[in-house]
Amino acid sequence: MADTPVTPLLDTVSTPDDLRKLKPDQLRQLADELRTETISAVGTTGGHLGSGLGVVELTTAIHYVFDTPRDRLVWDVGHQCYPHKILTGRRDRIRTLRQGGGLSGFTKRNESEYDPFGAAHSSTSISAALGFAVANKIAGTPGKGIAVIGDGAMSAGMAYEAMNNAEQAGNRLVVILNDNDMSIAPPVGGLSAYLSRIVSSREFLGIRELAKKLARRLPRPFHNAARKTDEFARGMTMGGTLFEELGFYYVGPIDGHNLEHLIPVLENVRDAEEGPILVHVVTKKGKGYAPAEAAADKYHGVQKFDVISGVQTKAPPGPPQYQNVFGAQLVAEAAKDDRICAITAAMPSGTGLDAFAKAYPDRFFDVGIAEQHGVTFAAGLAAQGMRPFCAIYSTFLQRAYDQVVHDVAIQNLPVRFAIDRAGLVGADGATHAGSFDVTYLATLPNFVVMAAADEAELVHMTHTAAQYDTGPIAVRYPRGNGTGVALPATPELLEIGKGRIVREGKAVAILSLGTRLEEALKAADVLEAKGLSTTVADLRFAKPLDVEMIRKLLTTHEVAVTIEEGAVGGFGAHVLTLASDEGLIDGGLKLRTLRLPDLFQDQDKPDAQYAEAGLDSAALVETVLKALRHNSGGVAEARA
Amino acid sequence: MADTPVTPLLDTVSTPDDLRKLKPDQLRQLADELRTETISAVGTTGGHLGSGLGVVELTTAIHYVFDTPRDRLVWDVGHQCYPHKILTGRRDRIRTLRQGGGLSGFTKRNESEYDPFGAAHSSTSISAALGFAVANKIAGTPGKGIAVIGDGAMSAGMAYEAMNNAEQAGNRLVVILNDNDMSIAPPVGGLSAYLSRIVSSREFLGIRELAKKLARRLPRPFHNAARKTDEFARGMTMGGTLFEELGFYYVGPIDGHNLEHLIPVLENVRDAEEGPILVHVVTKKGKGYAPAEAAADKYHGVQKFDVISGVQTKAPPGPPQYQNVFGAQLVAEAAKDDRICAITAAMPSGTGLDAFAKAYPDRFFDVGIAEQHGVTFAAGLAAQGMRPFCAIYSTFLQRAYDQVVHDVAIQNLPVRFAIDRAGLVGADGATHAGSFDVTYLATLPNFVVMAAADEAELVHMTHTAAQYDTGPIAVRYPRGNGTGVALPATPELLEIGKGRIVREGKAVAILSLGTRLEEALKAADVLEAKGLSTTVADLRFAKPLDVEMIRKLLTTHEVAVTIEEGAVGGFGAHVLTLASDEGLIDGGLKLRTLRLPDLFQDQDKPDAQYAEAGLDSAALVETVLKALRHNSGGVAEARA
Repeated sequence: MADTPVTPLLDTVSTPDDLRKLKPDQLRQLADELRTETISAVGTTGGHLGSGLGVVELTTAIHYVFDTPRDRLVWDVGHQCYPHKILTGRRDRIRTLRQGGGLSGFTKRNESEYDPFGAAHSSTSISAALGFAVANKIAGTPGKGIAVIGDGAMSAGMAYEAMNNAEQAGNRLVVILNDNDMSIAPPVGGLSAYLSRIVSSREFLGIRELAKKLARRLPRPFHNAARKTDEFARGMTMGGTLFEELGFYYVGPIDGHNLEHLIPVLENVRDAEEGPILVHVVTKKGKGYAPAEAAADKYHGVQKFDVISGVQTKAPPGPPQYQNVFGAQLVAEAAKDDRICAITAAMPSGTGLDAFAKAYPDRFFDVGIAEQHGVTFAAGLAAQGMRPFCAIYSTFLQRAYDQVVHDVAIQNLPVRFAIDRAGLVGADGATHAGSFDVTYLATLPNFVVMAAADEAELVHMTHTAAQYDTGPIAVRYPRGNGTGVALPATPELLEIGKGRIVREGKAVAILSLGTRLEEALKAADVLEAKGLSTTVADLRFAKPLDVEMIRKLLTTHEVAVTIEEGAVGGFGAHVLTLASDEGLIDGGLKLRTLRLPDLFQDQDKPDAQYAEAGLDSAALVETVLKALRHNSGGVAEARA
Repeated sequence: MADTPVTPLLDTVSTPDDLRKLKPDQLRQLADELRTETISAVGTTGGHLGSGLGVVELTTAIHYVFDTPRDRLVWDVGHQCYPHKILTGRRDRIRTLRQGGGLSGFTKRNESEYDPFGAAHSSTSISAALGFAVANKIAGTPGKGIAVIGDGAMSAGMAYEAMNNAEQAGNRLVVILNDNDMSIAPPVGGLSAYLSRIVSSREFLGIRELAKKLARRLPRPFHNAARKTDEFARGMTMGGTLFEELGFYYVGPIDGHNLEHLIPVLENVRDAEEGPILVHVVTKKGKGYAPAEAAADKYHGVQKFDVISGVQTKAPPGPPQYQNVFGAQLVAEAAKDDRICAITAAMPSGTGLDAFAKAYPDRFFDVGIAEQHGVTFAAGLAAQGMRPFCAIYSTFLQRAYDQVVHDVAIQNLPVRFAIDRAGLVGADGATHAGSFDVTYLATLPNFVVMAAADEAELVHMTHTAAQYDTGPIAVRYPRGNGTGVALPATPELLEIGKGRIVREGKAVAILSLGTRLEEALKAADVLEAKGLSTTVADLRFAKPLDVEMIRKLLTTHEVAVTIEEGAVGGFGAHVLTLASDEGLIDGGLKLRTLRLPDLFQDQDKPDAQYAEAGLDSAALVETVLKALRHNSGGVAEARA
């Protein structure tokens, strides 16, 4: 291919076994070629770039030193794994990244034995690596667990829980802290400040010093008796008390782009007889690609781009993104009401809250990768009379589910949830899909659950949530651009639990929740052309349901179909439950529910995902026609 | 009352305002009387004792020094709050603790303005207190946030996330670490070892030293310029680097039973101009009551007992507890299969795993209060070929929901979930009820979800889960004793997704999931007596459903009713969805779903809770009769 770079050494390496045959002095060239290939590939596909560029040397060094795949390497979050994929037998498919049928943008177990654990959410790697290490320990088989985790991910509670449990793994657990002082946004919090102090207060360990210290210390047998004295354990390490206090041997900081340092350190860590060991490696996100290094976000996630200039393909002009519509409306609300405040878990830009942060810095809280704390913190704010909005992606809100139940719902506190990325998400695939929020929220007493059909609805719902002080309220909306409807000059205060009829008909009723409304209207056109006059309702609320409207729709149409971008147990299930509670099904009811299928859908273009899910106008039409054809005497017949 | 102790000083104190009128030298007597009253009350009601006794002096000192309720005091977990309730206007109801209509066994917002934040799950207090502190800071109104958190609770990730975010609160946040070296079970992990090292390596601060150090240090204005140098900040504190590294001023350790130390320390902390401050207080669980101090669990949770002897009222002899049936079966499985291992999050006894821990200590993992880590650790073990059982209460599994989705379900890893305390839980109330697990698990692709109808079923299901390597599998079962059925000599390997017919009839079908089966059989007797021949099926699986059986039951009976001990969106909703998908409802179907009501039920006796929920035989009978009476022409009529 014309855009494939010249990589003579990398061409000889298709697996880590090939890599391990190289001489140490060849690794610099290999890393350079690996970096060039990574840039070229992401230029073609788009995706995560900055994180991968930051770990090119680390990836090379880990595979060179450790016995992968027997040593289980777990990349935290996984979006930095493109160089890893190139080195582990997947270079031939690297330009299919994040595309339908192509390589995942994250690590994935069914893609390669070199991906022993999939990841895409943050901060799981130490727990998983500890699982590998301990399983091998019990079985008495060789093999370490190696977690590579960023400093941002280290701020999540889960990572701390894992560190707190790590001691049992001994030398089978290696944690490599990849400190690039940045997750997606600049880091926040005490841990980050602490790491900065370490890095700024010490020189990187030099090569001679390393050789001496490591040779003397790590690979030698530890004297167990002596080890028990605290002083001795401290003496064995080179600083970094927080990790030591939790039971780790700390080594660092190390320059993560210097292979001459990385290789001997990792070799020593590999051969150490005691552990667990934490290696503190300092890297630069976007390293080695000038446009990325110069960008504020270090090319965290990019569109396709020109490799020479770094200029990204612009998305075609279109309607505003949902996240920004939400963000702008929240700024408008905050202008009128100083009780409005906003919480994000390390996603100020992705949630559209960057504008809010700028306008109202005192009422803006980026808690870091800490959804659990974020939700309960918001509950505390609400209990003291504030009007907090927690803006968290649907899939990440899962991490705070207990806090949603225990601290918000049970106490009936008016925390507002702005749930972005609800539904299918395209290239990010199953791990990022927001499939379950309606199910896991609408089952909770006290909760109000709204879904926006378009960006104008999102304006109304944001406004409505701001005003609603009775209890918890959530509004879900999808990734990406709105539908292009005009935004209202003045937001409406919606009546809680009331839907709207968008189109009136007589034979068929489509009960839509959220953004499948457009498809519902398309389906109505098709059905109308077939002589089936169709009502389309936008129910707006998954909870409380608009009982009156649903009752009327179900009893005055031949067929009714619900549609939602969510898994079973959500809106459709609640409509069915209502119909059953009220006995509406007793006399016969052609009611069907369209929902996400009972499988985790891989990444693809959104339209392909919707077609696979059966959540488009074609599926709606087919469902209606099939229901009409269905022998309505089925039950009677079966009885006979 | 005969059993009310003589408490002349406590009798004069009904609120903290009264307390604050006392002289410091009266506080010792007050605390002693408060302890006596606490012991007496819990002797009458049963409940949590050891934790409350450990904080009698701390409770007294906090209310004496701080301006409660304006200063917001948040008790972590909340089960240590009985002395607090006695001092805050609730002494007259203290002997109704944990009873229907009585005081909650935890803090509760609607009980008192002195309970600004309810708790019952662990480790939420710092986040909530931070919310209070920051809301006041924004509004410019006085009032601190004070969190009292145990060392066990401090090991949860959520507490770490909150500490990592605490700096913004400045002196408005006070965290009191109540270090009793014990949550419910002895503590585990690196943090616990760290705290022990602090306590064992230092003397408690003496009164003179305290007075000098504190007077000089905390209440004076800090020099902001100087503060920025790391050395100076360290110099301001008295050790405890882990907390300092996260941005706290650390004070301690302090003897938490010595009021002469507690009062001046807290006064200084109250008046400090900088913060946040962490006060490390060392207490003894069960302090001051010999039988509690002598008991291994320090009387964590007790039955009613005789105050003189400490002898607890024995529960009447009955069938074995579900937790122990599970624990015994897992030991049996482990004897035959060394891949079986068990994970608990600080509940070795509550989950029945203590026997397993004794028999197979190398395959037993108590991860501390760290459900998130526990689940992903189990996923790692499973990925390496182990057969891990995660035994976590239903309500606590909420805290690991993202890990269940992202690390287990998406990767289809065979982690076994033993979900205890599923359904209503009696005296522990809404915060501990396991209401949502069927809904939040059965919506996930790849998951198998079972519910045990009795303890024999639990044996079969535990065995079945042990053998099932295809993907994740969960078995849910309730708190308390089994039904008394004989335990099988040999466990059955159940066919996945197949239910069983327990009783055959013709007119009515009851589709039961889990332990409401007994009530279903009672209802069948009543219906039979009314001439309604009744089938009772135990579906066993909420996912995958027994499609064949359900189809047959729905099409061959006049009325069908599902019953489950779970909230909307679960088993009943899945049955309705199936009936709709298959068009079974088209010809008319009298199908009803009984489930938990759409409210958080307060503590009460289990039978009263079931009656309130409408989940007993009476409700089943009524539902069937009402459905039969219901005008089956409802839909047609409404159309006309």
